[in-house]
Amino acid sequence: MDDKTEGFRAKLHEVIFEADTKAGKRFDLALLGLILLSVAVVMLETIPTLHERYFHWFYAIEWFFTVIFTIEYLLRLYVVNAPLRYAKSTFGLIDLVSILPTYLSLFVAGSQTLLVVRILRLLRVFRILRMGRFLWAGHIISRALKASRHKLVVFVFFVAQLVIIIGAVMYFVEGPSNDGFSSIPQSIYWAVVTLTTVGFGDVTPETPFGKFLATLVMVIGYAIIAVPTGIVSAELVANQKQNNTQVCRHCSQEGHDDDATHCKYCGWKLFE
Amino acid sequence: MDDKTEGFRAKLHEVIFEADTKAGKRFDLALLGLILLSVAVVMLETIPTLHERYFHWFYAIEWFFTVIFTIEYLLRLYVVNAPLRYAKSTFGLIDLVSILPTYLSLFVAGSQTLLVVRILRLLRVFRILRMGRFLWAGHIISRALKASRHKLVVFVFFVAQLVIIIGAVMYFVEGPSNDGFSSIPQSIYWAVVTLTTVGFGDVTPETPFGKFLATLVMVIGYAIIAVPTGIVSAELVANQKQNNTQVCRHCSQEGHDDDATHCKYCGWKLFE
Amino acid sequence: MDDKTEGFRAKLHEVIFEADTKAGKRFDLALLGLILLSVAVVMLETIPTLHERYFHWFYAIEWFFTVIFTIEYLLRLYVVNAPLRYAKSTFGLIDLVSILPTYLSLFVAGSQTLLVVRILRLLRVFRILRMGRFLWAGHIISRALKASRHKLVVFVFFVAQLVIIIGAVMYFVEGPSNDGFSSIPQSIYWAVVTLTTVGFGDVTPETPFGKFLATLVMVIGYAIIAVPTGIVSAELVANQKQNNTQVCRHCSQEGHDDDATHCKYCGWKLFE
Amino acid sequence: MDDKTEGFRAKLHEVIFEADTKAGKRFDLALLGLILLSVAVVMLETIPTLHERYFHWFYAIEWFFTVIFTIEYLLRLYVVNAPLRYAKSTFGLIDLVSILPTYLSLFVAGSQTLLVVRILRLLRVFRILRMGRFLWAGHIISRALKASRHKLVVFVFFVAQLVIIIGAVMYFVEGPSNDGFSSIPQSIYWAVVTLTTVGFGDVTPETPFGKFLATLVMVIGYAIIAVPTGIVSAELVANQKQNNTQVCRHCSQEGHDDDATHCKYCGWKLFE
Repeated sequence: MDDKTEGFRAKLHEVIFEADTKAGKRFDLALLGLILLSVAVVMLETIPTLHERYFHWFYAIEWFFTVIFTIEYLLRLYVVNAPLRYAKSTFGLIDLVSILPTYLSLFVAGSQTLLVVRILRLLRVFRILRMGRFLWAGHIISRALKASRHKLVVFVFFVAQLVIIIGAVMYFVEGPSNDGFSSIPQSIYWAVVTLTTVGFGDVTPETPFGKFLATLVMVIGYAIIAVPTGIVSAELVANQKQNNTQVCRHCSQEGHDDDATHCKYCGWKLFE
Repeated sequence: MDDKTEGFRAKLHEVIFEADTKAGKRFDLALLGLILLSVAVVMLETIPTLHERYFHWFYAIEWFFTVIFTIEYLLRLYVVNAPLRYAKSTFGLIDLVSILPTYLSLFVAGSQTLLVVRILRLLRVFRILRMGRFLWAGHIISRALKASRHKLVVFVFFVAQLVIIIGAVMYFVEGPSNDGFSSIPQSIYWAVVTLTTVGFGDVTPETPFGKFLATLVMVIGYAIIAVPTGIVSAELVANQKQNNTQVCRHCSQEGHDDDATHCKYCGWKLFE
Repeated sequence: MDDKTEGFRAKLHEVIFEADTKAGKRFDLALLGLILLSVAVVMLETIPTLHERYFHWFYAIEWFFTVIFTIEYLLRLYVVNAPLRYAKSTFGLIDLVSILPTYLSLFVAGSQTLLVVRILRLLRVFRILRMGRFLWAGHIISRALKASRHKLVVFVFFVAQLVIIIGAVMYFVEGPSNDGFSSIPQSIYWAVVTLTTVGFGDVTPETPFGKFLATLVMVIGYAIIAVPTGIVSAELVANQKQNNTQVCRHCSQEGHDDDATHCKYCGWKLFE
Repeated sequence: MDDKTEGFRAKLHEVIFEADTKAGKRFDLALLGLILLSVAVVMLETIPTLHERYFHWFYAIEWFFTVIFTIEYLLRLYVVNAPLRYAKSTFGLIDLVSILPTYLSLFVAGSQTLLVVRILRLLRVFRILRMGRFLWAGHIISRALKASRHKLVVFVFFVAQLVIIIGAVMYFVEGPSNDGFSSIPQSIYWAVVTLTTVGFGDVTPETPFGKFLATLVMVIGYAIIAVPTGIVSAELVANQKQNNTQVCRHCSQEGHDDDATHCKYCGWKLFE
């Protein structure tokens, strides 16, 4: 590869992968627009009346987007120094999965619908617009969820047992006279719909005793909806206090309390 | 403009714009009553049975209110020193938009219904009744929402992607046999109805596998309903503590309660 | 009134009004049982099938309870020193209202159903069982609600305006083709059902654009459900810290923080 | 009992009751798998179409699991030193109740469905996998719920009175013209469905005034859903801070984070 090609490749890399230069930013914004459009088309295509009338248009547009995204994917592979590493990265895989379904649809009918996964490509949006504040916000949320994961798992485990027991009891009470409780899995479906306060109403108790039990289930649901909210709230309240971004000059650790005067990891005096 | 007119104008300004004098307060309360009445009339007019029977009455009342509010609007323009600035202010625009639809209805049928925007004029209520505590409360709420806006945006962005993916999956699973999932947008509608725990029940899964997936979606909804609540709670908890930034002049400590008159650390009298 | 009668009256007062003696406690527990039974009977009476079959029984039982509660009411009036003050107290009024409907039913048919207000007499339960901890818990909850009342009022005021605007918009969009949105009040009913995530499903949008707007309304509802929860949580978190029951020896005020060394009201040194 | 038997018994005890040795862990994991399978079978058996076709299979599988669990139960009784104490412990009772229904089904038809209580045996999962973090998480949740139990009881007591009053009022307003409010208990069912924001929609108000009242009930429900969440959140926030009670040996300060290795006030090494 001569120098000229190499320069072109570096320039292309800058446009495609970076968002600092004007060209890079334009490229990324155009890409985002295309992604949104292509997802909208995939969604609209599934509406029967539209599908019938504009079948050929949808077909053409889909291939148009796929060809563009394929070229983009190949260019990405071309300009990076380690194509395989990019191909195996999360973004690389999403990029690949975003074009495969159209080619797949040549062999398997209906697989175009899988193209909605293209929506995942929008995750680039944060990188592109350099919205550090949003990244930080997302980081705080995911840290809070991560910190409370053990509590949430215990809670879900407890709720899972609860809905099975409730489902079995309601199957006993309502089952004989009510089609909506014709089996335990069906009754569990009702229990989940009720405990989560979704309440579709496609299955409802009909016997007086069934309604009485349903009342108890709803009050329980009302009470336990407080638990996950409380868990996440408590974690976020605690996090709020850890916003202190001071880094220890000795061990480079952060996460010190506001009133700390010494590093809690190595004991070094913190700079005021 | 001679002095007499000028004095009359100043007097009128006091009555219309201020709420300190007795006349000003009476004017404002009468105005609030008229606004509430006019909105009630607009709402009642849309009830078919009432509309049919009292058509002429509604027509007359509507013009009555519109003429009054028009006079009030013109008076406001007349008494302020910078009419254009008032006309372009939020309150000025709301005042204008509150009378336009009736005139518009002479040309476009049905546009009277737009008159419900008059309800926005009620925002004056806080100014009129000088309810400082309510203003302060509103300020705290909006500050908490503003402080958590990045987190809420990230959350909504994440939920938006989630409902699209869930919608596509449910379209695959339920679509072929269930009219409620006949397209991806329709399935996304169901996903939003379910994730937010609204649960209308106009669209519900019917296949066993669809019900199983719905169960998972509901449990996820149950879990993520905790996130925005946690975010806002954490912000309000943090705000609660930052309410008072007063520093003791004697020992330089802060963190005093709003009702404190003495420093809780050294007992020195706090400056009011 | 001679001494003997007076002694009897004092004894009776102790039994009826106090819960410290054994007799007083027994009287109160028996009373609670009668109240619960009488409310249950009133509720059961409204079930058509039961009403038809046991009409005479219900009639007899109702008069039985009414006569007993009337005697109790008269005794209460007899034993207290200030009958009028008792009669005008909250408990006195509830006691009276609990027996009136039966007498009223001699003149106005159907008024017995008002007897469910007897359930309010159960409020005595806390006094009787001397459940100080529950009283304290109730006190904390009501204090938190009271402290956050301004914020909650502002919030409700904002939501009220929001549902009127949403109702008007949905009336425009769905009204012409959907009976559920046939008037603005009807559409406001839907808006409240949706924003509060109740979601009965008796009224649902049918046009694609209506469904799209409904999706936005639900996401907004999801977001603002966080606000009242956050307000109450923040208040309760703040209260938790005020559990410190230390009283200033100088000004007798309480509500000091745990780390306070001086009274925040008078500056006096707090006892450690 | 000779030494050899005794040794065999001790060995068996280790396998069945302990989870430290390899054999013990394998036994426990196999047991968990069997429990999950047997519960799945019980649930699937209640699905009419499956039940009809595979009746004999279900019958056989059920007895297979029951025999295995019976042998396991007898072995447990055999290897422990105090069989009666095990039999009367929570786990012992659950183990017994998990096999009884099948034997009972020889005399009472349909009692097999009670076998879903086997799901409770899954509680062993935490003990087996030694998931200390999950146990700790569960401990924190239950401690928070326990600490807030008085507040929750007061709240439920208040809500119970509220739904009875709302039920009676709605019975008055909607009852005459609406089958869903044909009795007070029925109206209370509606009140619970609405206040908890479940909103099945099987019973809905139909008169304009009924809908207006329903709107108020929903807004109240919206407001009071905040209370239990706030209670539990406040408790968890308070707990979060009390997680670590370690005191610095050098400066006697406490309030250290769980991951701290040095005192944040003086830098002294904390005792692990």
